[in-house]
Amino acid sequence: MLMAMESRRHLLDTDGLSREEIQELLDRAKYWKQQGKQKHALGAGRFAANLFYEPSTRTRVSFEVAEKRLGMETIQFNPDTSSGVKGETLQDTMKTLASIGVEIAVVRHAGVGVLAELAREDLGLSLVNAGEGNGGHPTQALLDLFTMQEHFGEVAGLRVAIIGDIHHSRVARSNVWALKTMGAEVVLSGPASMRDAQLEQHAPYVPVDEAVRQTDVVMMLRVQLERHRETIFTSADDYLRAYGLTGKRESMMQPHAIIMHPGPVNRGVEMEDRFVEHPRSLIFEQMANGVWIRMAVLERSLEKE
Amino acid sequence: MLMAMESRRHLLDTDGLSREEIQELLDRAKYWKQQGKQKHALGAGRFAANLFYEPSTRTRVSFEVAEKRLGMETIQFNPDTSSGVKGETLQDTMKTLASIGVEIAVVRHAGVGVLAELAREDLGLSLVNAGEGNGGHPTQALLDLFTMQEHFGEVAGLRVAIIGDIHHSRVARSNVWALKTMGAEVVLSGPASMRDAQLEQHAPYVPVDEAVRQTDVVMMLRVQLERHRETIFTSADDYLRAYGLTGKRESMMQPHAIIMHPGPVNRGVEMEDRFVEHPRSLIFEQMANGVWIRMAVLERSLEKE
Amino acid sequence: MLMAMESRRHLLDTDGLSREEIQELLDRAKYWKQQGKQKHALGAGRFAANLFYEPSTRTRVSFEVAEKRLGMETIQFNPDTSSGVKGETLQDTMKTLASIGVEIAVVRHAGVGVLAELAREDLGLSLVNAGEGNGGHPTQALLDLFTMQEHFGEVAGLRVAIIGDIHHSRVARSNVWALKTMGAEVVLSGPASMRDAQLEQHAPYVPVDEAVRQTDVVMMLRVQLERHRETIFTSADDYLRAYGLTGKRESMMQPHAIIMHPGPVNRGVEMEDRFVEHPRSLIFEQMANGVWIRMAVLERSLEKE
Repeated sequence: MLMAMESRRHLLDTDGLSREEIQELLDRAKYWKQQGKQKHALGAGRFAANLFYEPSTRTRVSFEVAEKRLGMETIQFNPDTSSGVKGETLQDTMKTLASIGVEIAVVRHAGVGVLAELAREDLGLSLVNAGEGNGGHPTQALLDLFTMQEHFGEVAGLRVAIIGDIHHSRVARSNVWALKTMGAEVVLSGPASMRDAQLEQHAPYVPVDEAVRQTDVVMMLRVQLERHRETIFTSADDYLRAYGLTGKRESMMQPHAIIMHPGPVNRGVEMEDRFVEHPRSLIFEQMANGVWIRMAVLERSLEKE
Repeated sequence: MLMAMESRRHLLDTDGLSREEIQELLDRAKYWKQQGKQKHALGAGRFAANLFYEPSTRTRVSFEVAEKRLGMETIQFNPDTSSGVKGETLQDTMKTLASIGVEIAVVRHAGVGVLAELAREDLGLSLVNAGEGNGGHPTQALLDLFTMQEHFGEVAGLRVAIIGDIHHSRVARSNVWALKTMGAEVVLSGPASMRDAQLEQHAPYVPVDEAVRQTDVVMMLRVQLERHRETIFTSADDYLRAYGLTGKRESMMQPHAIIMHPGPVNRGVEMEDRFVEHPRSLIFEQMANGVWIRMAVLERSLEKE
Repeated sequence: MLMAMESRRHLLDTDGLSREEIQELLDRAKYWKQQGKQKHALGAGRFAANLFYEPSTRTRVSFEVAEKRLGMETIQFNPDTSSGVKGETLQDTMKTLASIGVEIAVVRHAGVGVLAELAREDLGLSLVNAGEGNGGHPTQALLDLFTMQEHFGEVAGLRVAIIGDIHHSRVARSNVWALKTMGAEVVLSGPASMRDAQLEQHAPYVPVDEAVRQTDVVMMLRVQLERHRETIFTSADDYLRAYGLTGKRESMMQPHAIIMHPGPVNRGVEMEDRFVEHPRSLIFEQMANGVWIRMAVLERSLEKE
């Protein structure tokens, strides 16, 4: 007597989206941005639950703001005080939430493939990936593309460098899929120990100076210092000099080229402190645009009533 | 200069409710369900606080959805970051919340009798029991009755088996009071070590096979494996074979009989995995109905303005 | 490409407020109180974030109720599950929230001077101090003044005793600045070991009996038993006898004098249990008034659109 199977509008990762679907999301984000800071009626009386099994500020708050701007009701789900501690599976938690009336579950989880696994069965709600281990972070990639499109007019034809810990980066992965789909060129760079053989089948690896010099967009990735500091490089300064955005590298950038970063920035590691608020930096625009993209993503996942 | 004494509409347990009161709650739940997934004006501008001192998913979220569907504002009270850590008593916390404008406190607590103790004094707000130790869980019982009534037409005359850890179950206790009040027959079953002498004054204990064979409703209780596994039975399989819903027992059930469980189910312990989503199972209907029953309970506790 | 510098309406502490500004806040609080328990349109579609880095019940809930009564959307920011655990600075957290659309950040923090430090740079949002270490707690002082004004007609000319752990009290500090600005007389009292040389430049220290006898308002401060019990006095009883409000001291109070306390009260320590709900006590009025004052403070911080 479970609810009948229906097709759901999940957002698992960018590699599942066609060029038309991505363009539709970018267009809808533009629409929502043009509407400004008002509360809409689209989601009135409809519930989203935010399940963050890993720490987050910008993504969690951004989704919550997006949900509320759409007029949705939001449920903040705290894994530490839920029935997960009684051994309930994630799958049963989803079915429970769906039965109670939740239509969209926004999930951040450490386990790569957890969402794809969940999506195999009809859970009664739509899943939105808010960052999954080293796997994917599709709304981050979409907001990055939206920010590029807004700045340059279109994404097709742009040359984008993604620099840093490529191997462990869900942001890199989702951006490569989305950027290639939209017709951008991507190069990867960073420490040799952080290269990713699989991704390099889609985007070539080049030295940092070359990456910075040849591209329209210099996207620096967050280094998880806590993991790598001791083993790979001896200090933040060493990382900055070898792979970060120093004054010298910024001066190599093309005059029109921009700086991006998914945040939070380790100031003085991925880039010199001053570049975070630099005229070339679109880091705060990225954060602001995250709300409009997430409104578009949520809108797509809301079932027709 | 404290607020004047007024009568409050607490919901402490089902044993304090008359047949008329229970029927009124079931009728109001039906009304709210018929209204569907909209946001109502009844609770506009009025505040409920949810204080969960023990883990919960379905009950906590269900109350939050119910509050928001009624149009109420909700306060999520996190015991770990409250003044409770400064030594404030629960009674003073309630008076504080009432002074700030909270009209209903939904409380889950480990301590049996805590709510009754609180209710002795006028706190300035209405208390709703959302599960109290091994004591009572009235909204669970009410949603169970609502689900039975919806399925069978009426609760009076139904034969209901409650099977499992009777002694430690607040669900069993609240269901026995409510079912008996409404004119249903109840039998109890489960491991001898989990029998409850007091409850058996109201509902006889019978062997599991007999309980399954003779009743219209087979309600399996959650086994708290973490407590009992080592001491009482050596494995989940053993429990399933001895007291759970196996295929053999399901085939003994009357053709029209249904399966219920308050959740979360330990799949493969209280019942074979396949019975959770089985045509006989109303487990997800129970969860869905929880929202409508809680709307009825909250409506009852909202003071006239 | 960061947002242009604009003047923000922070509330850092009462020592930054003129007599006119305090009076305006008291007047607006009175206005909101007269409006009663409805939801207003002023804050519709606008976001406040509540960042509590220290435990709180009454202040946190009071702000949340105030935000929602103004029609604002609220973000509950949990430091334990935010990017702070990834090493993000408070300043970058603020800029992130502002980029996402948050207009007001209500902050409780242990570090004295943290908010003033944050306010040196334009963060893109308004800061409201919800209690800062031993530094200041301006909305508590303002609600105290509002409660006094409501009870006595005006604050100017009142004689107020603040009794207890003066040295560690942000409540004492913010009250001294606000009360002196509004023309009240203040005396301080309490254990010699808890005196504060700097504050005594603004308000004389007197023995407890004298403080109780001569004043219109007897404001007892919370003793942080967990810090002092072992070192300074040997028991709660000892503290009550030496510095608390005993029956003997209450009988020394002027007939019209009132009892106040910021809460949570250690019943039997700062005062005998019965004085919390005593006719002289305005402790619950203080809590209730906190909502109206915070609505006034939030209204002041909402930027013109």
